[in-house]
Amino acid sequence: MLSEPVKNELKRIVGEKNASFAKEDLLCYSYDATNTLYPPEAVVFPGGPEEISLIVKMANSERFPVIPRGAGTGFTGGSLPVEGGVVISTERMKRVIEIDAENLTALVEPGVVTWEFQQEVERLGLFYPPDPSSLKFSTIGGNIAECAGGPRAVKYGVTRDYVLGLEAVLPTGGIIQTGVRTAKGVVGYDLTRLLVGSEGTLGIITRARLRLLPLPEETKTLLAVFNDLKDAAATVSQIIRSRIIPSTLELMDSTSIRCVEEYAMVGLPNAEAILLIETDGPRESALRDAQAVREICIGNNAFRADIASGKKEVKDIWQARRAISAALFRAKPNKINEDVVVPRSRITELILGLQEIARRRGLLIASFGHAGDGNIHANIMYDRKDPAEAMNAEEAVAEVFDLALRLDGTISGEHGIGVTKAPYLGMELSPQAVELMKGIKKTFDPNGILNPGKIFPGRKGRRTVEEETYAGVF
Amino acid sequence: MLSEPVKNELKRIVGEKNASFAKEDLLCYSYDATNTLYPPEAVVFPGGPEEISLIVKMANSERFPVIPRGAGTGFTGGSLPVEGGVVISTERMKRVIEIDAENLTALVEPGVVTWEFQQEVERLGLFYPPDPSSLKFSTIGGNIAECAGGPRAVKYGVTRDYVLGLEAVLPTGGIIQTGVRTAKGVVGYDLTRLLVGSEGTLGIITRARLRLLPLPEETKTLLAVFNDLKDAAATVSQIIRSRIIPSTLELMDSTSIRCVEEYAMVGLPNAEAILLIETDGPRESALRDAQAVREICIGNNAFRADIASGKKEVKDIWQARRAISAALFRAKPNKINEDVVVPRSRITELILGLQEIARRRGLLIASFGHAGDGNIHANIMYDRKDPAEAMNAEEAVAEVFDLALRLDGTISGEHGIGVTKAPYLGMELSPQAVELMKGIKKTFDPNGILNPGKIFPGRKGRRTVEEETYAGVF
Repeated sequence: MLSEPVKNELKRIVGEKNASFAKEDLLCYSYDATNTLYPPEAVVFPGGPEEISLIVKMANSERFPVIPRGAGTGFTGGSLPVEGGVVISTERMKRVIEIDAENLTALVEPGVVTWEFQQEVERLGLFYPPDPSSLKFSTIGGNIAECAGGPRAVKYGVTRDYVLGLEAVLPTGGIIQTGVRTAKGVVGYDLTRLLVGSEGTLGIITRARLRLLPLPEETKTLLAVFNDLKDAAATVSQIIRSRIIPSTLELMDSTSIRCVEEYAMVGLPNAEAILLIETDGPRESALRDAQAVREICIGNNAFRADIASGKKEVKDIWQARRAISAALFRAKPNKINEDVVVPRSRITELILGLQEIARRRGLLIASFGHAGDGNIHANIMYDRKDPAEAMNAEEAVAEVFDLALRLDGTISGEHGIGVTKAPYLGMELSPQAVELMKGIKKTFDPNGILNPGKIFPGRKGRRTVEEETYAGVF
Repeated sequence: MLSEPVKNELKRIVGEKNASFAKEDLLCYSYDATNTLYPPEAVVFPGGPEEISLIVKMANSERFPVIPRGAGTGFTGGSLPVEGGVVISTERMKRVIEIDAENLTALVEPGVVTWEFQQEVERLGLFYPPDPSSLKFSTIGGNIAECAGGPRAVKYGVTRDYVLGLEAVLPTGGIIQTGVRTAKGVVGYDLTRLLVGSEGTLGIITRARLRLLPLPEETKTLLAVFNDLKDAAATVSQIIRSRIIPSTLELMDSTSIRCVEEYAMVGLPNAEAILLIETDGPRESALRDAQAVREICIGNNAFRADIASGKKEVKDIWQARRAISAALFRAKPNKINEDVVVPRSRITELILGLQEIARRRGLLIASFGHAGDGNIHANIMYDRKDPAEAMNAEEAVAEVFDLALRLDGTISGEHGIGVTKAPYLGMELSPQAVELMKGIKKTFDPNGILNPGKIFPGRKGRRTVEEETYAGVF
C-alpha cells in the first residue's frame, strides 16, 4: 500500500486536485473492456512528461507499480492495475500541438481522442486512417500502446504505420525522444516501433509525431448479403485477387446478424453472411472499384449487393455494424472478444471452425470483423454467474487460438496480449522469443515498475476483496 | 586469427567448396560502397539457417566476429568486417519460396536480388515497392538489415513497411521466427521491426515474409526544369499541399546536372534544378495527377515540364537520374554520400545550406535524391590522395549533419549508421537512447559476436597492413 508520504508527494507533483485516493475515483480507473476490476491505490492526472518522470522516479525508489491509462477501452486488460499501484491517466494531456499540412505530420499529446483528432485533420483535407471501433472514446496514446487497427487497416495499415516518432517517459524516469519528424529515418535501433504495441510496459508515451495522408476524394459503401458463408469468403478472396484493395472489407456471420436483428432491429436481412465493403480514392476509381466489387459479389451468389446511394444509407449500414457488440450483450451478460487473424484465404475454415466449437460446446460465438485482412473477432458469450458456462467459455478460448494458429494465423491482430492472452503467449511464441522480450523489458525497466503483470505469463495475480465487491456493480 | 581447427570446422559445416580463406576471395568480401577495405579471415556461403546457427555457436565459444553480408552495396559500411572474423555471405540462399497472390505475401530467402524479385512478382500483377538505387545488385536481406528506401518511398514507404515476419539466427546461435504471415499481428514486442534496420547486429536474417501490393495500373513520368532551385522546392511543397502523393518525386541540383552532362551527356538542359516526377494508380487518376503536377510546375516557373510520351522517353529520363552517381566519380575519385532528411518544406534551406558549405570549403557537393520525402543525398566529392582535401571533406560531413539536424531532420534516411556515421550518432540521439540501444544489443548478443564495430561510436579500429595494400587496388 502507498504510504502517506508517497501520497503527499504525488499530490505535490501533480497538484492536489489532480491526484485522488478516493474509492469512488479508484473504481473508475479499475476496469477496461474486459469487464474485470483491479482497483489502483491512486490515480493521478499529470500535465506533462516532467510530472510523470518525477512519479516514475519515486516509483523506482519506493517500489510501487505505475500503470499508464488512456480511455480504458482495451480488450485484453492492458490498462488494468493488476498489481495495484498508481494509475497515470493521460486525460489532461490532450492537446493537438501542431498539424503540419505541408509535411503531412501532426504532433499530439497522448490523451487526444482518436475520433476528435480525425475530425480536426479532415477539416484540413487530411486523413489519419487508424479507426479502432472504440475511436470515439479511445485515445491516440492508448492506440499507440496497443497498436490499434480497425476496418481501414486492410488498405491503410495499423497505428504502427502512422507513428513517426515518440516522446516517452522511460520506466526508470528518463524522458526520451525516438524516431524522426521526417518521412524517413534509420538512426540506430527502431525504438519507436518497439514502443508501439508494447502495451505500456516499456514507456509512457507523452507525445507522438504522426504521419497523415491526403483525405481520399470519394468513398463508396456496399452491403452484400449471402446465403452461404463460403460464398462471402470466396468474395473476399476474389476481390483481393482482382487487385482491388477496399478501404473496408468487413464480415458478419449469421450469429452476429441474428443478434443484431433480435436486439437492435436495424433492418438487416436474414442471412448466413453479410459483407460491408468500402472503396475509396479518386472519384472515378472509387466508383469503378465499387462496381467491380458489386459484380464479384453477384458472381459469388450474393442475393443482394447494393452500392449505398446516400449519406443516410451509409450511416444505417455502419450503425448495423457498430451495433453488433452492444447487441451481443443483450444475449448474454459477459463476452470474451478474441481477435484472431488468419491469412484471408483461410477465413472460411476459421469461421466454420469457430461455429463448430460453438456447436460442440453449446456456446454462442458471434464472429465478425475485418475479413479483408483476415482479422476476425470471435466473441464468446457467456454468463459469469454460471460457473460451468464461464469455464466452458474459458476452455473455448484455447481452442480458438489453437484453430487460428493451425491456419497459419496469430492469436492477436490488434488487441494485444495484456492480461487475458498472457497465459496463451507460449502457444504462438517460442521460449527464445519470449526470453528476448523479457530481456528487452529488463533493459528498459530493471525494477519492473511499469505496468507489471502484462504480456508475459506467470503473473501472481492479486484478486482483492474490493475487486469482488466492485464486480457486483457491473 | 582463426585457428586451423576452427577453419576445418567451418569447412565441415558448410562444405569444403563453400568456405574460403584465400586472399583473393577475402578481398572480394572486404569492401562495400564506402570504398574502404577490411578483409575478413574467412568467407562462408551457408545453405540455410542450421549451418549459420552452428557457425554462430562456434563464434561464441571461440570468440570470433561474424559479419552477415548481402551484396555489399551499402553506403555506411554495414557489411564491412572491421574487426576481422568470418563473413557469412547469403548468396546461396536466394530462393523465392512462395508468392501467395491470394494473401498478397511472399516468402523469400535473404540472398534474393531485389530487382529479380520485383520482376517475378510483377509478372503476376503484384508489386514490391522498395527500390533502392542498388536494387539490381542488392539483396532483400541487405535491404531489410538497412531498412532501404528509394524513390518510391514518398508514396509507398520503406522496406520496414513490407516486412511481416522474419526468420533469423540470433547472435547466440538460436533460430527464431518473428512476426506473422498475416496482414496484422501484435503478439509481444515487435521483434520484426527491431531486426529491420538493425544493420546485421541483432540477427542474421534467413527468411522474410514480405507484404505485396497490387501493381498500379498506370505510371506517368514527368521531367520539369527550373532556373531557380527555390521554384523547384516550392513545386515539391505545392504538389503535396495539393494532396497529390506522386510515386516518385526526385530532385537534381545544378551540380548534379552539370556533372551528368559533362560526363554522361544524356541531353539534360542547363538548369538550376530538375524534378523527376511520377504519378501512378488507376489509369484516369495517374494521368489526371500528372496533368495537375504539370500545371503546378509551370505555375512555379518551370521552363519545361513534359509528360513523357513513351517508354523510350521514360527510360532516358531515368537513365539521366541513375547516371548521377557514376558521373560524379568522373569529377573526383572519392565520394562521401550522406543521405540526410529534412521536413520537405525545408528542402530549399537544406540545399542552399549544402551549396554554402561547398562554396566556403571549395568542395564539390552534388545534391540529389528523394525530395518528396525530404531525403537528399549530399555527395561530397574529393580525392583521397590529397590529404588536405580528404580532411576538408571529412569536416564537411559534420557540418552537413549539423545543418540537417538544425532543420528538424535526421542524419540518415535510408543508409543506416554502420561505420561511417557511428562517430556522429550522438549528434542525433541522446545518451539515454544510445544506452537503451546498447542494452538491447547486449540482450541479443552478450558476447558481441555479431557484426561488431557498427552503429555505436567508439570502435577501436583495426587498420591492417593488408588493408593498406588492398587499398591500392581501387
